[in-house]
This record gives sequence, structure tokens and C-alpha cells, in this order.
Amino acid sequence: MGLAAMCPGTFDPVTNGHTDIVRRAAGVFDQVVVAVLENSGKAPLFSLEERTSMLKEALQDVDGVEVTSFSGLLVDFAKQRGIRVIVKGLRAVTDFDYELQMAQMNHQMTGIETFFVPTSPQWSYLSSSLIKEIVRHGGDVSGMVPENVHLRLREKLVGGD
Amino acid sequence: MGLAAMCPGTFDPVTNGHTDIVRRAAGVFDQVVVAVLENSGKAPLFSLEERTSMLKEALQDVDGVEVTSFSGLLVDFAKQRGIRVIVKGLRAVTDFDYELQMAQMNHQMTGIETFFVPTSPQWSYLSSSLIKEIVRHGGDVSGMVPENVHLRLREKLVGGD
Amino acid sequence: MGLAAMCPGTFDPVTNGHTDIVRRAAGVFDQVVVAVLENSGKAPLFSLEERTSMLKEALQDVDGVEVTSFSGLLVDFAKQRGIRVIVKGLRAVTDFDYELQMAQMNHQMTGIETFFVPTSPQWSYLSSSLIKEIVRHGGDVSGMVPENVHLRLREKLVGGD
Amino acid sequence: MGLAAMCPGTFDPVTNGHTDIVRRAAGVFDQVVVAVLENSGKAPLFSLEERTSMLKEALQDVDGVEVTSFSGLLVDFAKQRGIRVIVKGLRAVTDFDYELQMAQMNHQMTGIETFFVPTSPQWSYLSSSLIKEIVRHGGDVSGMVPENVHLRLREKLVGGD
Amino acid sequence: MGLAAMCPGTFDPVTNGHTDIVRRAAGVFDQVVVAVLENSGKAPLFSLEERTSMLKEALQDVDGVEVTSFSGLLVDFAKQRGIRVIVKGLRAVTDFDYELQMAQMNHQMTGIETFFVPTSPQWSYLSSSLIKEIVRHGGDVSGMVPENVHLRLREKLVGGD
Amino acid sequence: MGLAAMCPGTFDPVTNGHTDIVRRAAGVFDQVVVAVLENSGKAPLFSLEERTSMLKEALQDVDGVEVTSFSGLLVDFAKQRGIRVIVKGLRAVTDFDYELQMAQMNHQMTGIETFFVPTSPQWSYLSSSLIKEIVRHGGDVSGMVPENVHLRLREKLVGGD
Repeated sequence: MGLAAMCPGTFDPVTNGHTDIVRRAAGVFDQVVVAVLENSGKAPLFSLEERTSMLKEALQDVDGVEVTSFSGLLVDFAKQRGIRVIVKGLRAVTDFDYELQMAQMNHQMTGIETFFVPTSPQWSYLSSSLIKEIVRHGGDVSGMVPENVHLRLREKLVGGD
Repeated sequence: MGLAAMCPGTFDPVTNGHTDIVRRAAGVFDQVVVAVLENSGKAPLFSLEERTSMLKEALQDVDGVEVTSFSGLLVDFAKQRGIRVIVKGLRAVTDFDYELQMAQMNHQMTGIETFFVPTSPQWSYLSSSLIKEIVRHGGDVSGMVPENVHLRLREKLVGGD
Repeated sequence: MGLAAMCPGTFDPVTNGHTDIVRRAAGVFDQVVVAVLENSGKAPLFSLEERTSMLKEALQDVDGVEVTSFSGLLVDFAKQRGIRVIVKGLRAVTDFDYELQMAQMNHQMTGIETFFVPTSPQWSYLSSSLIKEIVRHGGDVSGMVPENVHLRLREKLVGGD
Repeated sequence: MGLAAMCPGTFDPVTNGHTDIVRRAAGVFDQVVVAVLENSGKAPLFSLEERTSMLKEALQDVDGVEVTSFSGLLVDFAKQRGIRVIVKGLRAVTDFDYELQMAQMNHQMTGIETFFVPTSPQWSYLSSSLIKEIVRHGGDVSGMVPENVHLRLREKLVGGD
Repeated sequence: MGLAAMCPGTFDPVTNGHTDIVRRAAGVFDQVVVAVLENSGKAPLFSLEERTSMLKEALQDVDGVEVTSFSGLLVDFAKQRGIRVIVKGLRAVTDFDYELQMAQMNHQMTGIETFFVPTSPQWSYLSSSLIKEIVRHGGDVSGMVPENVHLRLREKLVGGD
Repeated sequence: MGLAAMCPGTFDPVTNGHTDIVRRAAGVFDQVVVAVLENSGKAPLFSLEERTSMLKEALQDVDGVEVTSFSGLLVDFAKQRGIRVIVKGLRAVTDFDYELQMAQMNHQMTGIETFFVPTSPQWSYLSSSLIKEIVRHGGDVSGMVPENVHLRLREKLVGGD
């Protein structure tokens, strides 16, 4: 069945930085499981269903990608799905320390490997929380998120008609 | 009218590190607009009026400085005021990643530039939150904040007589 | 009476990384005071009494170690106990910036020195919050925390019998 | 005469990342002096004359830019030219530590300010030494350096016709 | 034929940190090509033949691993071998900046991906240059490098009989 | 005889940042051995004798300090002198990664501990190499190095009479 990788995240909402990492993972691995974290601690803007459906729409043209959700420990979900590799984008040094710690812990506990992929430069300044803050204040984020996400963000945060 | 720059922040409260950056910006630019962020998400210790008036007192001897407040996106406020340059102090590496991301986003959206000025070494260990924590536990912060701020912090956090 | 050092922390709960630093400090200094912070801002999982007693059990075989608690500023407590040296483990760069700032502030205010000891590689991926998250989701943390802590974590987070 | 800034460097050779910073500085300041360092310690690939003339060609369409060279201390040259502001691009954290140290030293000695401008994301992976290594091994750097630099690099490193 | 990855390096000499990364890559990919860089700029202690043969000995028990050498650009060698993935160990933040830059450049030029794998904590303090410095001064590096490397280092640096 | 610590370095030449760390170590430990590295790889500006005598002059007023020199591995010299603690100043993040690696290696090999002391803010921008570069170009470093070092630097680099 080939080699599979998992791309985990909260995706509240998915940005062009996220889809870039998934597309690049799909260019290498036979199958990529995008795993949306259900219980993220802080209340998300979009429900699990909304986050999952926005991802599916944004990635529908990429072969070998499955979007699903999980709760609990990521490594437990990966093992349950028979996946030994996690792929994560990496933006900056501050990210790196926490992510490194998590990856070493996950490897220590389960043998599951984490591969870090440098974010493409043109998306390196994006983050879901920055995106939400900009839309909330009436800023324009087209070209930073998939088109369907752009529309739903405006409905949610600015109010429609 | 000359070249203007904006120094944004929450200033809850202003420290000697902040005033050092504003004074140095005022030594370069013809005009410096100190912009106090109204809606910072977390509840500030001092009201917007208190933060603004403390800044005005602390900077009254510096020519070409205006203290004002804003809500919403910084870049929108800068454009509204016709200002193309933001000046920020920079203390440490952890700061840098987030600030870099924000600056790239702001430049991408509006063309507004962010100039980072290294904090003077003698103020490099200061932050508003550390200052508040020290005063709250009865510590002495004279020499770390302007004198008027020192007095108001004690009134607010220790209680007067 | 010899040279004393203080090892401060929230210890919610103590990990093998923490006990490694205390043991190494005890190998250098004549006396090591482990100081448990009472008022940490965010609600701890374990009460001050639980955190203190777990530390005492985990360190009972180490000579020259005293476990106690404090509230307020660390430097005030250190001065009160006549201790001029704080010893802290250091895991990563992100830690370092905040810790450096705090240490410079403490030295500036009181002359008290902070010595940073690099965490042993085998514990470099551990943190109390990661430990709690793993146990909460049914993961196994034996070998990452002292045995007594392992048991109490399961009682607290998973439910017993 | 307006406000002037200095953009210093070795420029061996100039890249699109360098010209981006100069163009952005020229969008803010009335005059930008690009200062090519003569004595850089290590032997440059291009002579001072070559580096200077490549910069002039690459920047000929930008108003208010002067390309010149200097030896000795940058701050001495800036003072001699009556310039109080240095503008530098900043790519990454490793850069930052050294550059911060240098900027604090320069400010301490002379009062001259250094403003750091975050490199545009699309050029964040460029450096003169990486460019030379790629061309040396037959790689293609068009789109990473100005067109005139591209041609001269091939002449110098690959051999002509 | 399955999915292949390339593990590049100078390996002067190979350490337990290097072999750990290769073994972990071999646990994920069907084939791992260990690529020894011939022309590293600075004179290596061991010849290309010595470095290659030490690697072969140290990795002879791992299935799916081939040790070979290359000169020129890594991405050219990878393309020539039909490999789209580079796997590198990552020790620390300082590494990260340079490696990130290189990886973004390589991806930009060729589409080849670089996956960064966090070094296992127990090898995180190892580097080939530190190893050589220790042996040169009579220190003991057994347990830090493969056994065959330990012996050859002593022959080379300390002198035999 | 009390607790002793070792402060190692090349000290080419000693700066006010170095003497600050030695004085602070001497405030904590009963004895501080300042250990000047003889064979530093790159040719130093000052001979071992010059570096040692400048340190002795600069530190003659501090009780409990001995200045000496060593070649080979630092940990071997420390063991030979019966010292279990190394004290190092720490300026910045870039320092930290290399120093952390070295400290973990030293602890692994010998059990010797390295304590990192944050450099005082006012000296955080100093380094021996920056100092030499400034003097070489006619800059003024008084107030950055001990007075005796200032004089010898001018003799050595600028020429006398």
C-alpha cells in the first residue's frame, strides 16, 4: 500500500502555509493523512466539522490525501492508523524548540518519527491566529488562505449579507 | 513636514526601555507618533487614559513626539496618519521571531516598513509584565521606569496611605 | 556551614529532569534548598502540599537537600534564607531568553547570581506540562518522573482502583 | 537636504536580497548611501571596483541612491558623511546575535543608530556565499541575483564562451 | 523499487549521532543512500576512502543502506540518482538557520525536499570536530563513535603500536 | 579549603565582560582559577605571557583569584587541579548552542559541571575580536577593557610613541 505520513494540526483555519506542506508531503509519500485535532484546549473559532470540511475543499485536487480528525495523543492515533511518520512545517526558531521537545518525546515513547519541512519562504509569515486577527479588524487575507476559507472567515468574523 | 515614524505598544506601563526607543527614534525622525493600543485582548492593569497620560508625562521633554491611541490594526492606523515607518525596540531572540512574522505580514499587506532598533543593554532585561510582578510583591523598580510610573504603580498595586 | 544554593520551581509535578538538576547542584554545593513556588498564577494540578511531599520523597536519598515553599519574589526568599546563588536547569533557547531576562533583573535588584546548568540530554525533552498531557490521554510516563509521581499522576488524572 | 541612511556590506556579489533592502530604504529615506567594505579580511571573489560597478548597474533605476566604498570602521565613515542611521537587512536568528552586538557597540561608541529591516520572505534563503557555491558547481542562480551579476558570476566561475 | 532518501555529510569521522539518523531513515524509507561529500573546502582528517569505508563498516548491519560519495552540488547528485528526499539530523538552533536556508534554496532550485529529524537526546552533544579535538588531547570517545572509528581515530591522532 | 571554580578562556585580550564574570564568581566561590588556554588553534594577537599578565593586573584587587594557563582539554586541567565546576559568562543565543554542547560533552565525560552566568547587560555587546577590530581602525575602547589592556592594545595595533 506504500508509505504513509500524517500531517497534524488544529487548522483553525487552514492557511496557504498548511496546504503547501500537505501538497509537498503528498509529492513524497504514497498517502498523507491530514489529522485535525478535536480537543485543542482553547476554544477554536471554527467547529471541528467546519475545519475538516474547509481542509477537504482546499485539498480536493491533491491525490493520496485523506482528511480526518482525532482526539487524545497524536502518537496513539498514528499507531492506530499504522503510520510511523509525522510531517510538520517549521517556520521559525521559536517553533523549533517546542516542536523538537515534542518530537523527541514522541520518538522516545513510540518510535514514531517526526520530519520537519521548512515552510516555503512566501508563507513563512502566516499563522492561523494572525489571519484571524487581520480579518477581525477588516483586513484582507485573500492570497494567504484558500479561497473558500477567505469567504467563511468574512462570514464568521465580519458579518455578511 | 519631514519624515514621521510610529512607535506602537500596550505600554502597561511604559518602562525606561520604551522611552529609550522613543527618544532614539525622535533623534532620527522629524516626528514620532507613540501609538497606545486600546484593545489588547488581555485586561491591562492601567486604563487607556492612564497609560496615555503616563507616556505624555514621561516624554514631555522630547521634541517632535505625539502620544495618541488606536484600536484595530496598527497598519490601518499608520496609513490613516500617513506614516510609512514603524519603529520597535527589540530585546531578544524570542521576541524576534514573532515580530519578524508580524513585520513581514504588515509589509506584504501595506508596504509599511518596520525598523527594529536593538534595545540599549542597560534596559534589555526590562518588560512591563516583569515590572508589575516585582511591584506586586513589594519589590523596588525605581530606576527601571519613569518616576511618575513608579508612584502610580505603588498606588495601584501596593495600596497607599 | 558552607555554600548554599536554591533550586526554585513550580514542580507540578517534579520530573526526572528536575531531580537531575537538584542532585547535580547537591554534588557541588554544601546545601541545596529546593523552593516550591506557592502562587504560580495558573491553578496547579497538585496542591502545594502534594508538590512538596512528592519532591521530599523523590529526593530523600540525597544529602544536603531541604525542600520548602515560598510565595512572593524568589530573590526576597533567597535573601531571607541568606542564599546568594540560584541554580536552574536550562533546556532550550526559548527558555533562555526569558530566564536570562529574569536573572539579569534579579542580579540588578539584589546581587543574587543565577547559575544555569544544561539539562542532561536524556531529560531534555521533558516538561511538567507535557507529562500531564500524556498521562491525561492514557500515555505512559514511567521512566520520565520519579516512581511516586507516576502513581499519583495516574490517581489524579486517570482515576484509580 | 533631508534624512540619509547608509546600507553597508561586502556585496561579493550583490543579490536580490540586498537590492530589495536598498530599494525599501530608498522608499523611506531621502538619500541612501550604499557603502561597499573594501578590506573584508577574507579575499573576495570580485574586486572592489567590480562589486561597486555591479551595484551601480543593479540600482541605477532607484532615485536617491549613491554607491561608494570605504575601509576602516563603518561608524567612522558614517560620521564623516554626516549620516546617523545604518539600515541592514536581517535574515535569521543567527545573524541577529552578531548584528545586535555590533549595533549596540556602534551606538555606544558614536550614537549612530542601526535599523534592522526584515528580509522579504522570497529572498530570505539567499546569501552571497551560497550563490557563489551554486554557480561554482554549475547551478543556475538567475532570479536570485540581478541579471548583470548573473553574467559576471558565470564568466568568473565557470569560464566563458 | 520503493521510496529512497539521501543522507549527506562530510562524516570526518562518522559519529553515533550520524548512524542513529541513518538507521532511523532506514526504518522509514525503502532505501537510504549515504552520500559522503568529497570536496568539503577544508582539509579533512580522513581521506574520502577512509570516511566511506568507516561508514560501510558501521552500517553493515542495516538493510537498505548504500554508502557512496559525491562532489559538486548535493541536489545535482540527488537528481542524478533519482532521489527527491534529503534527510538530515538537526541538533540545535544554530544549525537550524543555516540548514533552513540551504533547504529552501535547494527546494527552490530543484523541488527536492529536505526532512529534518531531531537528533536523539543522547547524541545531541556530539559533533565530528568535538570528537577529533577530544581524541587529539588524549580523551576517550568510546561510546560516542562506532568502535571501528574509535580505533582509527587513535591511530591517526595519538600514534600507534 | 572551600569550593573552587574555574573560569576558562583565550582572553585575547581580557575585556570588562570577562573581569565582571570572574569578580562575580569570586563573590560566590572560595577560590577562582582563571585558566588561559595556550593552544587556541588560531594565532592570538597577544602571547600567552601577555594575556596572563594583563589578567593578573586587571584582577589584582580581587581576593581568591589565581591566574594560570593550560593546554589540552579543559576538563583534564580541571580534574588535575581538583576542580569540579566551570563558570562561563553567556552573552547570547548563538553562544549558547555551542557552549551547551561542550558542557554536556564535558559532563558526560568527567562529571564536571558547567555553570552559565548571564553577562551583565552593560557588557553584553563586548567581545575580544570586536575590541581588536575597533582598535585596529583607530577606534576608542576605553571603558570597555581594563585600563592596562587599553594601553597595550594601542601599542600593539596602532604603533607607539
